[in-house]
Amino acid sequence: MASASDGSNGFWPQGFLAGAVSANIKYSNRNDLMALVTDEPATAAALFTLNRCVAAPITLSQRHLQHSSSSIRALVCNSGNANAATGTQGLDDARAMAEAVAREFSLKPEEVLVASTGVIGQLLPMEKVLDGISSLAPTMQRHSVLDAASAIMTTDTFPKFYTIELQLSAGSVRLSGIAKGSGMICPNMATMLAFLATDATIEPALLHIALERANRKSFNAITVDGDTSTNDMVSIFASGKGAKITGESPDFILFCDALDALMTFLAKLIVIDGEGATKLLEITVTGAADHRDAELAARTIAQSSLVKTALHGEDANWGRIIAAAGRSGAVFNQEELELYFNDLRILQPPLVADFSEEAASEILAKDAFTITLRLGNGPGEATIWSCDLSKEYIEINGSYRS
Amino acid sequence: MASASDGSNGFWPQGFLAGAVSANIKYSNRNDLMALVTDEPATAAALFTLNRCVAAPITLSQRHLQHSSSSIRALVCNSGNANAATGTQGLDDARAMAEAVAREFSLKPEEVLVASTGVIGQLLPMEKVLDGISSLAPTMQRHSVLDAASAIMTTDTFPKFYTIELQLSAGSVRLSGIAKGSGMICPNMATMLAFLATDATIEPALLHIALERANRKSFNAITVDGDTSTNDMVSIFASGKGAKITGESPDFILFCDALDALMTFLAKLIVIDGEGATKLLEITVTGAADHRDAELAARTIAQSSLVKTALHGEDANWGRIIAAAGRSGAVFNQEELELYFNDLRILQPPLVADFSEEAASEILAKDAFTITLRLGNGPGEATIWSCDLSKEYIEINGSYRS
Repeated sequence: MASASDGSNGFWPQGFLAGAVSANIKYSNRNDLMALVTDEPATAAALFTLNRCVAAPITLSQRHLQHSSSSIRALVCNSGNANAATGTQGLDDARAMAEAVAREFSLKPEEVLVASTGVIGQLLPMEKVLDGISSLAPTMQRHSVLDAASAIMTTDTFPKFYTIELQLSAGSVRLSGIAKGSGMICPNMATMLAFLATDATIEPALLHIALERANRKSFNAITVDGDTSTNDMVSIFASGKGAKITGESPDFILFCDALDALMTFLAKLIVIDGEGATKLLEITVTGAADHRDAELAARTIAQSSLVKTALHGEDANWGRIIAAAGRSGAVFNQEELELYFNDLRILQPPLVADFSEEAASEILAKDAFTITLRLGNGPGEATIWSCDLSKEYIEINGSYRS
Repeated sequence: MASASDGSNGFWPQGFLAGAVSANIKYSNRNDLMALVTDEPATAAALFTLNRCVAAPITLSQRHLQHSSSSIRALVCNSGNANAATGTQGLDDARAMAEAVAREFSLKPEEVLVASTGVIGQLLPMEKVLDGISSLAPTMQRHSVLDAASAIMTTDTFPKFYTIELQLSAGSVRLSGIAKGSGMICPNMATMLAFLATDATIEPALLHIALERANRKSFNAITVDGDTSTNDMVSIFASGKGAKITGESPDFILFCDALDALMTFLAKLIVIDGEGATKLLEITVTGAADHRDAELAARTIAQSSLVKTALHGEDANWGRIIAAAGRSGAVFNQEELELYFNDLRILQPPLVADFSEEAASEILAKDAFTITLRLGNGPGEATIWSCDLSKEYIEINGSYRS
């Protein structure tokens, strides 16, 4: 009845055009401004950062989405400057970006979402930004997401994108997405920047449900450094050129699963490209009293500097892992703990650590592995993706602003 | 009526003897085992880690304190091995340490507190430990806290101690303390290791109140890496050789203030000697709705890897500071924020950052400075001490266990 094929050929779904230019906002000789434009009004949903120091483009996009969730037309994003903590002028600048895009593509300003990423607390160089927007039109194309994915990078070392083709009973659907990391990554009910597009025909309310569900297990389940950004935003536009999806149809479940796969893939790319990261860590806690406890423990392990540095040093220092779980607030009895690196049992009840150091070292030398901690007999489970903590993280962040 | 003089001459208060030996538990050629013994039964109070993975010596000391809070006689502590996550054998080993000390000094085992610090998840080399305890007696002396302070060090780079002489209306009192850091430092309602001694005559319940009050503003207000240890413990013994302090007397307030000063001094030493630290950061949040909000914001700023790396790089990246406050859960309106480095105003309402980069750089180049963030007009205030995050932290913790 339905089949999905993953790919990285990177076409946009039907009904979308994207372009990117170099506006020299902070970086030289690389694209730093992109726009995604729909052929006709699209439905849209988005999630935004819960940081109280919310950036101007987020405030503006929230208002525009409220106004135009059934008739969105474009998204514009710059990198190199977050337009955050910029006060009234920052809000005026975000509005000017929406207006310029609207002029350029004959839209209404409130049909345009705006996003920014980069350093906090500096005003946008608006002349460069507006010049850039006025040069976007000739770059617009349908055949590749690569340019747009590259233009939103900051300290990212590679562009992040993914597309999925989905065969539903009602017809075919394509989902494409681009994302960026790679510091200030600990999304809280929202995300860093990820812009998703589909040609599915779907109501905004249903699109929002699908986005929120998938977000919980993808972008909200990653951490690089425990810092939630001021500019987090994930949006999805549906052009309505493809199959129609309703809440009653099993196609909705399949669409949700595909969105889940798309967002989880992009989320993992963000962790793999975390600042200074050399390893992807999948941390699963099982047997917790409930999901909340499992997530607390998994998240605390994932964010522990001592765990992250030990794993960077490829040291099977399992004591730091259970110590992190122990301070997380999750309820358990340490005598019942069971710990695995991949399939290798490191710790068994009651606190017996009997494992081959050689086998453990072999696993820790890999670029990616799983850490599974069983707390007890409860039904609670959660998985968080994280990365190691290296000297390069210090290098990058001791000199980012200047 | 009362005067206090600080000093570092390091005598123990009347009624105490301490000694230290090299037991070769993990380190060679340095003392790694110490005991503090009272001439006669002393009153005692202690606070312990809230980590669920609690180490065996903590479990044992909790029981012994419950039994002997009016008649404590000794404390024994080893470094190089935490005796944590060691199951039943670990508890037997901690008990054997108390028994050996009791035999050596003709005490009852339950009059002895036991502490351990070092790597988690390895059994203590009990032959070496017991040999060490049997060599302690000839080293016992009254004139210096230095040997004991040195013997409890792990990755600490210097021994931490302080003494205060206090003239009260009822007579004079001396307070001395030793402490150790310097990783896994984010005490939670307790602390790392700190052993305090006074010759005051004071009831255990009152001593506990004084300890808990001072702890809130000292050891519980510091963080190095956000990791709460399995072995945190702070204890105080009162020998009763000096002035008598009762709850009704103003002397109690003066005693509390002195204990506060002693513990805050030791707490700051721990941060200064935090793993890889080069700067002491005093982070104060004012104008919060209540104390809880102020502490949330101050603690989140203090633990933010992005803030800590920026300050390590001496970069006035104030955006990261307000972004950390923004994700802390504290309630505020970003338009009202006001930020200072020492006395230099960095940010004023509404989000206006108008300061001399040169003046800011001069402050950030110092070994210690204050960061003060005003959230609004509320009465809530809190101060947390933290340190920067350097490549040396990664170096130390990527290879600690092996």
